[in-house]
Amino acid sequence: MTKVNKVVLAYSGGLDTSVIVRWLQDHYNCEVVTFTADIGQGEEVEPARAKAEALGVKEIYIEDLREEFVRDYVYPMFRANTIYEGEYLLGTSIARPLIAKRLVDIATETGADAISHGATGKGNDQVRFELGAYALKPGIQVIAPWREWDLSSRESLMAYCRERDIPVDFAAAGKKSPYSMDANLLHISYEGGILEDPWAEAEESMWRWSVSPEEAPDTATYIELEFRGGDIVAIDGEAMSPATVLAELNRVGGANGVGRLDIVENRYVGMKSRGCYETPGGTIMLKAHRAIESLTLDREVAHLKDELMPRYANLIYNGYWWSPERQMLQAAIDQSQAVVNGTVRLKLYKGSVSAVGRSSDDSLFDEGIATFEDDAGAYDQADAEGFIKLNALRLRIAAGRGRSAR
Amino acid sequence: MTKVNKVVLAYSGGLDTSVIVRWLQDHYNCEVVTFTADIGQGEEVEPARAKAEALGVKEIYIEDLREEFVRDYVYPMFRANTIYEGEYLLGTSIARPLIAKRLVDIATETGADAISHGATGKGNDQVRFELGAYALKPGIQVIAPWREWDLSSRESLMAYCRERDIPVDFAAAGKKSPYSMDANLLHISYEGGILEDPWAEAEESMWRWSVSPEEAPDTATYIELEFRGGDIVAIDGEAMSPATVLAELNRVGGANGVGRLDIVENRYVGMKSRGCYETPGGTIMLKAHRAIESLTLDREVAHLKDELMPRYANLIYNGYWWSPERQMLQAAIDQSQAVVNGTVRLKLYKGSVSAVGRSSDDSLFDEGIATFEDDAGAYDQADAEGFIKLNALRLRIAAGRGRSAR
Amino acid sequence: MTKVNKVVLAYSGGLDTSVIVRWLQDHYNCEVVTFTADIGQGEEVEPARAKAEALGVKEIYIEDLREEFVRDYVYPMFRANTIYEGEYLLGTSIARPLIAKRLVDIATETGADAISHGATGKGNDQVRFELGAYALKPGIQVIAPWREWDLSSRESLMAYCRERDIPVDFAAAGKKSPYSMDANLLHISYEGGILEDPWAEAEESMWRWSVSPEEAPDTATYIELEFRGGDIVAIDGEAMSPATVLAELNRVGGANGVGRLDIVENRYVGMKSRGCYETPGGTIMLKAHRAIESLTLDREVAHLKDELMPRYANLIYNGYWWSPERQMLQAAIDQSQAVVNGTVRLKLYKGSVSAVGRSSDDSLFDEGIATFEDDAGAYDQADAEGFIKLNALRLRIAAGRGRSAR
Amino acid sequence: MTKVNKVVLAYSGGLDTSVIVRWLQDHYNCEVVTFTADIGQGEEVEPARAKAEALGVKEIYIEDLREEFVRDYVYPMFRANTIYEGEYLLGTSIARPLIAKRLVDIATETGADAISHGATGKGNDQVRFELGAYALKPGIQVIAPWREWDLSSRESLMAYCRERDIPVDFAAAGKKSPYSMDANLLHISYEGGILEDPWAEAEESMWRWSVSPEEAPDTATYIELEFRGGDIVAIDGEAMSPATVLAELNRVGGANGVGRLDIVENRYVGMKSRGCYETPGGTIMLKAHRAIESLTLDREVAHLKDELMPRYANLIYNGYWWSPERQMLQAAIDQSQAVVNGTVRLKLYKGSVSAVGRSSDDSLFDEGIATFEDDAGAYDQADAEGFIKLNALRLRIAAGRGRSAR
Repeated sequence: MTKVNKVVLAYSGGLDTSVIVRWLQDHYNCEVVTFTADIGQGEEVEPARAKAEALGVKEIYIEDLREEFVRDYVYPMFRANTIYEGEYLLGTSIARPLIAKRLVDIATETGADAISHGATGKGNDQVRFELGAYALKPGIQVIAPWREWDLSSRESLMAYCRERDIPVDFAAAGKKSPYSMDANLLHISYEGGILEDPWAEAEESMWRWSVSPEEAPDTATYIELEFRGGDIVAIDGEAMSPATVLAELNRVGGANGVGRLDIVENRYVGMKSRGCYETPGGTIMLKAHRAIESLTLDREVAHLKDELMPRYANLIYNGYWWSPERQMLQAAIDQSQAVVNGTVRLKLYKGSVSAVGRSSDDSLFDEGIATFEDDAGAYDQADAEGFIKLNALRLRIAAGRGRSAR
Repeated sequence: MTKVNKVVLAYSGGLDTSVIVRWLQDHYNCEVVTFTADIGQGEEVEPARAKAEALGVKEIYIEDLREEFVRDYVYPMFRANTIYEGEYLLGTSIARPLIAKRLVDIATETGADAISHGATGKGNDQVRFELGAYALKPGIQVIAPWREWDLSSRESLMAYCRERDIPVDFAAAGKKSPYSMDANLLHISYEGGILEDPWAEAEESMWRWSVSPEEAPDTATYIELEFRGGDIVAIDGEAMSPATVLAELNRVGGANGVGRLDIVENRYVGMKSRGCYETPGGTIMLKAHRAIESLTLDREVAHLKDELMPRYANLIYNGYWWSPERQMLQAAIDQSQAVVNGTVRLKLYKGSVSAVGRSSDDSLFDEGIATFEDDAGAYDQADAEGFIKLNALRLRIAAGRGRSAR
Repeated sequence: MTKVNKVVLAYSGGLDTSVIVRWLQDHYNCEVVTFTADIGQGEEVEPARAKAEALGVKEIYIEDLREEFVRDYVYPMFRANTIYEGEYLLGTSIARPLIAKRLVDIATETGADAISHGATGKGNDQVRFELGAYALKPGIQVIAPWREWDLSSRESLMAYCRERDIPVDFAAAGKKSPYSMDANLLHISYEGGILEDPWAEAEESMWRWSVSPEEAPDTATYIELEFRGGDIVAIDGEAMSPATVLAELNRVGGANGVGRLDIVENRYVGMKSRGCYETPGGTIMLKAHRAIESLTLDREVAHLKDELMPRYANLIYNGYWWSPERQMLQAAIDQSQAVVNGTVRLKLYKGSVSAVGRSSDDSLFDEGIATFEDDAGAYDQADAEGFIKLNALRLRIAAGRGRSAR
Repeated sequence: MTKVNKVVLAYSGGLDTSVIVRWLQDHYNCEVVTFTADIGQGEEVEPARAKAEALGVKEIYIEDLREEFVRDYVYPMFRANTIYEGEYLLGTSIARPLIAKRLVDIATETGADAISHGATGKGNDQVRFELGAYALKPGIQVIAPWREWDLSSRESLMAYCRERDIPVDFAAAGKKSPYSMDANLLHISYEGGILEDPWAEAEESMWRWSVSPEEAPDTATYIELEFRGGDIVAIDGEAMSPATVLAELNRVGGANGVGRLDIVENRYVGMKSRGCYETPGGTIMLKAHRAIESLTLDREVAHLKDELMPRYANLIYNGYWWSPERQMLQAAIDQSQAVVNGTVRLKLYKGSVSAVGRSSDDSLFDEGIATFEDDAGAYDQADAEGFIKLNALRLRIAAGRGRSAR
């Protein structure tokens, strides 16, 4: 076991990470610095202070990172229309690099030689935290208690608490959701419990942020989103900060039953897992971003983005936000977004989002050319013959040699 | 003008192609063979016979291609989860190669030296017809009247009919939809009219195959789809042919308001155009296919498919179905599908489709490994440390030289 | 025929473009502006002035573009290790965008409404000139005489000259090379003549810039190239401008028989063609650039560049330099090059180039880790087990279900 | 430590693997089965029998796998023109899957529960062996002594031999090359020693299979290679088996100084390493395969192959031969090769290989169209205008809105 003097822990204030505080103190005989961030998970972060103090923690960091999270992580990711495996909007994945960055920066500030987190050894989050930490501070030590200790169940954790006088709300801990959940301003996720059977439908009671489509209003809600440089800057004409935009879209999306998702995904560590996600605002953002790009982006730029996207999504899912290849792709993506300006009108209704209108001063839609009516010579239909003939030439030569692609 | 003796025309029996029959006879002084196919457009094809006869056509081909269309074109395309520009399910694009193939095969059977079609010089369909024809019969002539003649409006077409005694239902022709439409078993499309303003919302009265989400039933409909080799072979336990599957999914999807789409797309000829589409069955198929693949496909195979898909979609959209590069991609896609077997359970409700369950004898989901409960040693969490450390090595080395990707 | 008042012609001073001057004057009854550029083709450009004057041209542009050519076109292209179809270094392709840009800029300066060039209707160059011109000045007219006139042979051109009193050195024109050639600072190309038989070996007498490997010196030449930001800035310690670098590498490469290439390539217009190329300096640059990147680039960045390269090469080959998708890719490529600094040592010997040494302050090669000797704990071999185990997990799960990839 | 009853060891008969035999017997108290294969490394394999017997091994497998190696691994790989990082022909990588397959098959035949190999914990080979083994026999145990034991130098190995009476030729072992080498029919590799300094030029004395270019014959050697389905089936008109082809190309290539390579490469485990390689036959095969493809492959198929190749190369380099994604790519690659038939004529001279002629009954080169002479109407130059105009349309529309890509 490596000697550690001081460790910065990503601390939620809940049972698991409270156990970790004590376990680190006991097991590594080291000082613990706690770091608790508000990234929009919807729970108060300030109560973590008293809990940390009660555990003897002297350096306590509590931070509101919501604007930074949306501005520097969520927004850049949405510029790429990022989806993992055709479905998942990467709500958990995109929050991890920010936490990793703050952990190592606090380690530098406090002179700590290690960081720690409460992610298990089976999941993606350990990878995301640790790749980020190593990439930003290569000499850092990482302690992942779940990979080290022998506390493998909720019961053993609670026994540990009792044994070590860790102040925990046992009543609350005992009533804990049967699901493993993670929340931030972009989404809330559910895993475990009955979801471990991929044939079982999620219970209605599981979902927390959205009403069911059945309970959503019977009339549609329309909203208008304004984009500048690929990012949303206003809703229905009102300018808003990034985090405010996302919070408002979560509100209106959730109220209309938008953004529920139920999938089986492939983890970086090699297994498949079932997950359910609620991403009301993100679902709206993706639809709207594609709509404004459809009007303003060049065709080949749009296609290139579509071909690069799965790879970019993999990087984020697998924890490579802080990698040079992600930066290289981001340079290309961002380069394309200067012209992605304008307004999209959306209809939200009982779980679905539709783009019903889009307009832009940077539009490349040319009504004069596209029209089915007389175009006054803007487009010479005769050009199409040569276009087709030369595109067909290689196929004709091959077919002439008996090589039709039947 | 090239000398043409006999031409095979893709003939719908409507105003435009009836004019083309006469125009070909007059202008090229050639014999016309008509070809009318039922590909599920929802209109009787048999009436085209009498119309063709009235125009003096002697060789009349009328064929039911629905099964061939779904089995050999739609199904292979869906194996790739094909979407163009993130949204469009390629309903028009995928029907063209079949028409092109039949046109040139009939040309061979009837000794014709040319084919003709009613697509305009601005659109994608001319390209799809002609690339297909040249690829399959390289010496064929192609006559595209819309690129040649000076009949540029509906009025001039009707005047031409009156002048040449072409038997047309002028009343019906005069009441024609303001939209340019195309239909087959996979979808119906709408362009033109008020849609030429991308800000204008489509009118409810435009849609033909689906009820509006607002008018769909207030309770959800559940269906179970069974896959073999990536293709749907049964609905709710009942085995069906490909065309029957798609017809039934159109019915149930349409009844639940599923499959409406409103987009701006990039045409191969270089302009943007606004299109609305109804693809009830296809929308369901895509969701279900992704769900069954999520359970049965290897991760890297799934990711490779996702990266190749935009390119494959481009090929189909642009008219390169009958190309060796499409065949090469198809070989890879089909190779992956042998294991895509099993059942998906879907919920349809007021415009949305959700996968709520999936099961397969070929599942790679390993509950014993993925579980949040004790896995009895199936997975050694300690392995994760080495996995992360070596994946981080290049990033650490770079960071150690001052090259963190901040 | 469109009405044209003034046209800017890419003018070499040779027979073909001299004929074009007169033909434009006669056929379009318009004023001709000539533009002659030194891009390192190895011929004097100043004599073009007298020839143009003799043809009555009043506005004559003669420019030395060698530095701009290498700095803004050749160098950016080599940052991507660009090769078309595995072999071709794009010597002709990369010069065309610069010519296109100057043609339309001169059109703007002189108030011309058209540009013209001497490229044939079968080749890639017409596409490159015209796509560039349209992209930079969308309203410009383009006149491509080879696609319009009926002068289809050298004999008919000479007859035209005699008829119209065009001052041509008939003796020189008559002795013209049997090959169609194009030269600039990056390469010289040969097409036509006996090369039209892909089985026929090129004659030794054809090559102009390089000695044959057999005639090259019997002892190897070593050179050291210094890179900054991916570009060569010094040879053997001597700082040089981009054009000087390339000229010097052509000299030393040519003297060692380096850079000859004989290929069959696929043209954008749909046919295959045989071409021979001499690219001494470019061949050296590519080898050296790969070598310095091998030391300084992150692995995943290098791999991403390799995967994007064929697409980037296609864009340049096909004439899309002045496109937003090329710019988007360039943004990614350039973003990767800041760390591509250092020195490469090369051995040139009778036609081959080998990298024999490379060093860099930005090296990511870590001798302490890579060593076969004791590494003092820099790398923990035990990490490899977990790395392999988790990378194997998906394969093991599949194999456990009878799905080994045999 | 896991309990192991019987282990199959990849056994060379040399010092290292002889030590491993005894170490496995002692450390795991298990029976050892040795497996020694002739894959063209150029050393007798039969002597391994006596050495194994002397170590008390009862089940000894000695096999000649040369034909299987070239036919089922090398040839399929060359169909893709596979190169890792622009330079490396994957000579070591491609041999590992075959060894892995035989190891686990012998484990099945002999009832062994484990396999073992002599690869270190820093390299790629451990990954390739083990991923292959796990993919083919998921329950197999893998023992990698270099990751477990404390014998970290040649001296400690020799001390171990003396201590345990392992019969080793100490004289030979003491004179061992300063380089870590690996050889098979495709190549020989060198790492370590002075190569650990990437600036140091490899010594002439290091190279084993090829003469130096300086010492190669002063006149060129010409050979003709015949391809069927993308594979070489004859040299200079003489039909040969795959292994015979490669051996003969190694001979003629080596005699002409062909195939030396000196690079810095990125290992899968995260570090850079310097390697030198001799691949005379492979270098010739790659050049020839590209040449025959240039004549016979469709352009878009060729380009698709070029874009997929780096990914396919990564899979092989990283050890994923026995993966479903490699199989999926192979299906696409193989599908393209049916038409890759014909003959290529090559010139070998002092280290370089040039394709100087190629011919094929499946050629798509159409002299009648490509000619600079009169083509009798085979190609209509007027088609080019429409081709260019429509390809330019999106660029013109953008430029018309002030969005030129300058």
